[in-house]
Parts: sequence; structure tokens; C-alpha cells
Amino acid sequence: MENSATRSSEKETRVALLGFGTVGSAVAHLLQTQQFDGVRLTRIYNRGIQRKQGSTRAEGLHGDIIWTDNIEDVLASDADVVIETIGGLDPMGEWLARALLAGKHVVTANKQLIAYRGAGLSQLAREHGVSLVYNAAVAGGVPVIPAVLHGLQGDRVRQIAGILNGTCNFILSQMEAGADYHDVLAKAQAAGYAEADPTADVDGYDARAKLCILARTAMQIGLDPDAVPVQTIRNVRLVDFHYARDLNCTIRQVARIESDGETVRARVGPTLVPHTSPFAWSHGTQNLVMTTGEFGGDVVFSGHGAGGNPTAVAVVSDLLAVAHGSASVSLPVQNRAVSREFVAPHYLRFVVQDKPGIVSAIAGALAQVGANIDSIVQRPGYPKDALPFVVTTEPCSTATIQQAVDTIAKMPTMLEEPLLLQILREPQES
Amino acid sequence: MENSATRSSEKETRVALLGFGTVGSAVAHLLQTQQFDGVRLTRIYNRGIQRKQGSTRAEGLHGDIIWTDNIEDVLASDADVVIETIGGLDPMGEWLARALLAGKHVVTANKQLIAYRGAGLSQLAREHGVSLVYNAAVAGGVPVIPAVLHGLQGDRVRQIAGILNGTCNFILSQMEAGADYHDVLAKAQAAGYAEADPTADVDGYDARAKLCILARTAMQIGLDPDAVPVQTIRNVRLVDFHYARDLNCTIRQVARIESDGETVRARVGPTLVPHTSPFAWSHGTQNLVMTTGEFGGDVVFSGHGAGGNPTAVAVVSDLLAVAHGSASVSLPVQNRAVSREFVAPHYLRFVVQDKPGIVSAIAGALAQVGANIDSIVQRPGYPKDALPFVVTTEPCSTATIQQAVDTIAKMPTMLEEPLLLQILREPQES
Repeated sequence: MENSATRSSEKETRVALLGFGTVGSAVAHLLQTQQFDGVRLTRIYNRGIQRKQGSTRAEGLHGDIIWTDNIEDVLASDADVVIETIGGLDPMGEWLARALLAGKHVVTANKQLIAYRGAGLSQLAREHGVSLVYNAAVAGGVPVIPAVLHGLQGDRVRQIAGILNGTCNFILSQMEAGADYHDVLAKAQAAGYAEADPTADVDGYDARAKLCILARTAMQIGLDPDAVPVQTIRNVRLVDFHYARDLNCTIRQVARIESDGETVRARVGPTLVPHTSPFAWSHGTQNLVMTTGEFGGDVVFSGHGAGGNPTAVAVVSDLLAVAHGSASVSLPVQNRAVSREFVAPHYLRFVVQDKPGIVSAIAGALAQVGANIDSIVQRPGYPKDALPFVVTTEPCSTATIQQAVDTIAKMPTMLEEPLLLQILREPQES
Repeated sequence: MENSATRSSEKETRVALLGFGTVGSAVAHLLQTQQFDGVRLTRIYNRGIQRKQGSTRAEGLHGDIIWTDNIEDVLASDADVVIETIGGLDPMGEWLARALLAGKHVVTANKQLIAYRGAGLSQLAREHGVSLVYNAAVAGGVPVIPAVLHGLQGDRVRQIAGILNGTCNFILSQMEAGADYHDVLAKAQAAGYAEADPTADVDGYDARAKLCILARTAMQIGLDPDAVPVQTIRNVRLVDFHYARDLNCTIRQVARIESDGETVRARVGPTLVPHTSPFAWSHGTQNLVMTTGEFGGDVVFSGHGAGGNPTAVAVVSDLLAVAHGSASVSLPVQNRAVSREFVAPHYLRFVVQDKPGIVSAIAGALAQVGANIDSIVQRPGYPKDALPFVVTTEPCSTATIQQAVDTIAKMPTMLEEPLLLQILREPQES
């Protein structure tokens, strides 16, 4: 049973699982519950494995599983597939490379590793005749990667926009309902939706890694994550939701990429989305991805982006694809340059000490760069000495509007840095 | 080049296309535009092929294509894959069976054929070592079948509900906006969304075929389409949309299946859907499918359900999957029994000659079968001699409520057959 020489002649696929936290234990239980033909969990690796093995999470798992805290045991074992649910770049990148070198297929939910080193690991996998699969790394239980790999490969995907971070979506949809940023962040942390250090989520790094993976799988575009600009959601305030509502919009963290075949534009950040768009429908920790194909038009995918069981479904589906031999797709190895220049309508929120001539000064700064004002909105009920008001523009380039904002930010009446957000287009008629 | 003995040693996949209508010509142009490696369109079959070959649709296609109106030419050719875009059970069932027997892979968009004879054809394909793929048969450009086959196979899908017929969705979403059924049907026919004989669409047969295909691929449940009850949308009137709005709902044609592992419930028909549910967001000819997995929860897919280019994307993606050898998945051969017994809240619309005691008589009939009234709604402004009013019930079984409706329908004050619709549950919190 532990003889690796018999691997190819046996039908059973032996599986080693790295990590026995929320996702890892859900994977183990899903495999046990569903009893898929020809797939058997043989090993579980975790640091401090005895504590894990004795925990309530381990109850009900069959007794033949070998529990270990020595990664060398796993890499030297007869496992055909290594499932990774631990995360992080190091040491995981080296461990998984060694697993591939040892002829083991790898299934991983590790978005940072795949975003930064996926191309190299995929090449390694190809060279050694094994698969590297990572559908669980993007949007958890929403099968957007299998859908684009197997169902949209006949199209030419030109745009992807996604709500890819459940924590931000939870925070922003709670703020939409009136909650304060800090209160709702604390609530998300208490509920386990947000980390103690929320940087990766709220500043956009998590969504950016997922966007890079989507770009590679759906658009055949390799990207260096560090080349994609991010904007934090920390500066979005309740007043912005009030103004957004006046504009028939709400605010979501949107990760976007567009390609016209030449230039690749990409960014992650809080964005105004029309109430009529699917992005506004996404509440709580849900994820949502919209792909726009040159031939097939818009396709929307949504569901649970995180959580043990939804992510475990993605991991186990990948495992079954590997076991049934239908997992290989070749993807680009080279990274493309990224432009941050989008042409979009923009939302500008200022907080000023109200004095005559402010609107005229702002309008002048915008006119100077050629940005046309679409609307000026000032809600009643705010104090004159710290007055928030909003200007929206017609579509113009990011650089153009940023130039005006830099000028406006220096005006003495400005009490804080202006907030600049993109406004997503209305959905197209079908 | 035309020597079938060389097939396996050549890398190029030769493709024969059956049908050169809206979808077929879009497939031909997509293959020509995208220039996929290793795939070449070699033959096009259609009745009256000379007219097709001389049409504007044929412009720009490369000159090496052999155009024919003799199916025997195609079946005897060296084509590796036959793509079918014609539709219908006969003679297509026999033609495609012969193609499979001849060792050709088959890619088809033929929903009726796959719903009625897919299990047999799949078995034939397996026996001859070739693939039968039909992602384009359900929801056109929305890759729901690849997504469930490759991305949700680790889950146990318990429910599927879908808006699977673009014509009905166009009609009902226009009625929601105030249009008359007959006017909007005429408009749909003029725009090419609806056939001259709209029976297959409005009476639910089209959606039913697609539901059966989804049941088989996502839930491993074989169904005889004729065993699934359908309810027409012809009896839905504007007044029902007004009452639905009062109930914070709208009306869509919904195809549903549920399985608890034992009983399989399935039906197609107009259904009240809450404004807060994704089903209410689907407008125009869009399709939308929601799967509910035991582990991964709800996943929503939406996009263009029909049209030449979106359907061509699905067909060509299938072709590429076949060419790359990642298309085979084994599915059930046996059909399961279908129950029409759902437990759901219900909407009952009556048109009566208003007389004292009517409400009490209706309430009595409902009480007698144990159905609890949730609300009684009577909008002002309708004539007393043909008064529509609505009763909604708490969840109860279809048989229970039907028994009461049968009693009520016989009451002398009833001016027409009562309309009985199911009400879909509110979306679950994520």
C-alpha cells in the first residue's frame, strides 16, 4: 500500500493533505462523507499535529490516515496528489515545487503563491507530467475558473470585474446599511471574516492576487501582482454611501482588468457601482465575477467566496479533475505590462470649510485638464465648517482626473485629502 | 488529407459542421476569427447548401471548406468531430448515432435530443471511445454545465432553479414593465426571439428539456422529460404582476428540481420570485441558473442564454475540450421517478363576481385541506362584476393546495379558472 512503484498500476488516487484548519478539515470530512470512487485520503500534515489529531475536527475521520508534522514524510510518501490549504509564499513555494518534482499532482487554494509564482510552478508541473490546479484560490465555492477554462475558451475575454474579497464586501454592504467602518471591521473580526491585521483585505492585496489569477486563466494574460495599483477602502465613509445613493449607486471593492489586445488596464479599489448592476446585488461575504467576452458578452458568477465547506468543494472538485485526468490547460508564462489608465466617469468627494468660490475653483481645476463635470451634489444637514460635497465627471482618463485632484488637494479650504473613486458603467441591455 | 487512417497520427482536429443558420454560421466565423491551434473546419452540411454558400453569412470563410447537402458525405468523411446546430429529434438522433459509431466525437446544441436520448447516445459514445458534449444545449453562452461538471463535482447538488428560456423571460420582464402578453409576444416574434408557434417556449417544453439536462449533469439524476410537469405562462396577466409587486415579488418562468436523496421533485412554470432574489434581476432574454449544494451553498450563473455568438462560444469551447481530450465525464443512464409534490408558499388569483361570503367560502375550502392563509390582497380600482383578488398561503404541498383550488374553481361566483403559482423562497443570508 505504501509502495510508490505500484502507483501507476493502481486505480486508487492517494491524497496527502497539508493543513488541518478550517479549509483542510472541511476537505477531509468532504472526502470521507462523499466516498468518491478511487480517491483516498492517506496523510494529513500540520504543525503540532497531535493537538489537531485530538481535536473535535478530527472526529469521525477513518483510522487509516497517517498524521504527521514532518513535511519530509509527505514528500517522500506514495501520495499521488498533495492538497495544500496552509497558504503563504514561504516555505510553501518550495514544498509544492518539491512535490511536483517528485511527480505528485498539486491542488492548492493558495492565491498569493499562485499569483506570484504560479507560472513557474505550472511550468515545473508540465515538465514533470503532473497537474497544478488552483480553482479554490479564486472565489472559493464559485467555480469561475473551471467555467472560464472549460466553457469560455472559445471566446476572447476582454474584461473581468469582480468582487473578490468577502471581507471588504461584508464591510461595505454593512456600511451601505448605515454601519460605521470601525464598528463593522470589529464585527467582521469577531465573526472570523477578517484577520486581526486587515491590511491584505481592506487595502486590496487579497483581491489583487485573485485578479491576477483570473487574468491568467480567463484572458491568457500574465501579470505581476505588484504592478497592479490598489486603493484602500479605509477612506470610504458613510457620507460617500449617502452621496452614492443620490447617484443611484452603492460602493463595492471592485477588482478590474481590461484588455483591447494591446494595452492591459488593471486596478483594485472601492468603486461606485449602479444599483442596477449585479455588483450592487452582492451582499455579505459573497463574491461575484463578471466576464465580458468579445463574442459571448457578459457572464456573471456569484456565490460564497470563502468558508470551509465552499472552499473544500472547489478543492475536492480539483482533486477529482486530477484523478480523472481532465485538469490540464496551458497558460501563459510571461508577464504583461499593466496600465493604470482607465477611461471612466469619476466620483470626487471633498470635505471643505465652506467659503464662496470653492465650487468655481474646483470647476476651474477640472476644466483646466479637460474633465467635464456631470453633476455637483451637496446634501443638506452637514456643518459649514466641515462640509462634504461631491462632484461627478463624465468619462475621462485616470491620469487626467488625478492631475486635477492634485491641484484641488492643495487648495487651502480642503480639510482632508479628496476621495477619488471610479464609477462602473451601467449594465448593457441584453 | 482526406485519409481517415491518418487521423490518430495527425495533431489537427478536422471538424464537420451540421447546419449553417444563426448558430452554425456564428460557429464557422468564430473558428475562422480565433484561429485556434490544431482545429480546422473542413465541411459544412445544410439543406439547399448552394443558397447558404452564396449568402452573405458565408463571406470571409476560407476556400478549403467543402460545402455539401449530402449527410452521407459527412458521415463517411475523415472529420474527427461533428458539430450539430440543426436541432430536432429526427433524423438528427440517427445521424449523430451514426457519427458516434463511425468514431467521430459529437458536439451538439440540441437540447431536445439530449434531454430525450442523451443517456443512450452517451453510452454509445463511451462504447466507441469518443465524446458527446452538449454544453451549448443549456443556457447558451452561460457555461453552467462545464462549471458544474468541473467545479462542483465535489459537492452534492440538492436543488437547481433556473430561468432557462429567454423568450419567456423577455415576455415576462416586459409584462412586469406594463406590456400586454399578446403585444409582447408579437414583438418577440418580430425581433426573432420567439417562434411563429411559441408553444415550446411559453408552455415550458424548452425549459423542461434544459432542466433534464442540468439534472443529469449537475445532480446525476436521469429524468424522462415527459414526466416533469409544465405550467404555461399564457394565463399570467398584468393584474398578477400588480399583485406580485404588492407581495414584493415579480413573476418568472422558473424550472426547478429538488432532491433529498430519495424523492425527486421537478416542475417548470411561472413562479413568484422575491425582488430580493437573483431571479428577479434577470431581464430580457437573459438566462440564470442557481445551484444549491449541500456543502458549497448557492451558486448563481447568468448571461446570454441564446443568440448566435454566445451559443457559438459554448459550441467552440466544447470543440476545444474534445480536441484537448478533457471532455469525458460519466453520467447516469437510468431515469428516476419524478414527484410534482413541492412544499412551497402559493399564490392564488381568483376572478369573481363580487358577492358577500366569497372570501369566507374560499377560506373555508383552504381550511378544509389544512392550508393556512398568509395574506388576502384586493387591489382597488377593479370592477365588482369581474374582480380579481389574491390569496397567498403559508408553505403547503402542491397536492393539498390543488385539492382546495379544485373545490374553489367549482364555486358559481368564479368567472375563470383560478391561477395557482408557487412562490420561490427568499434568498438565504450568506
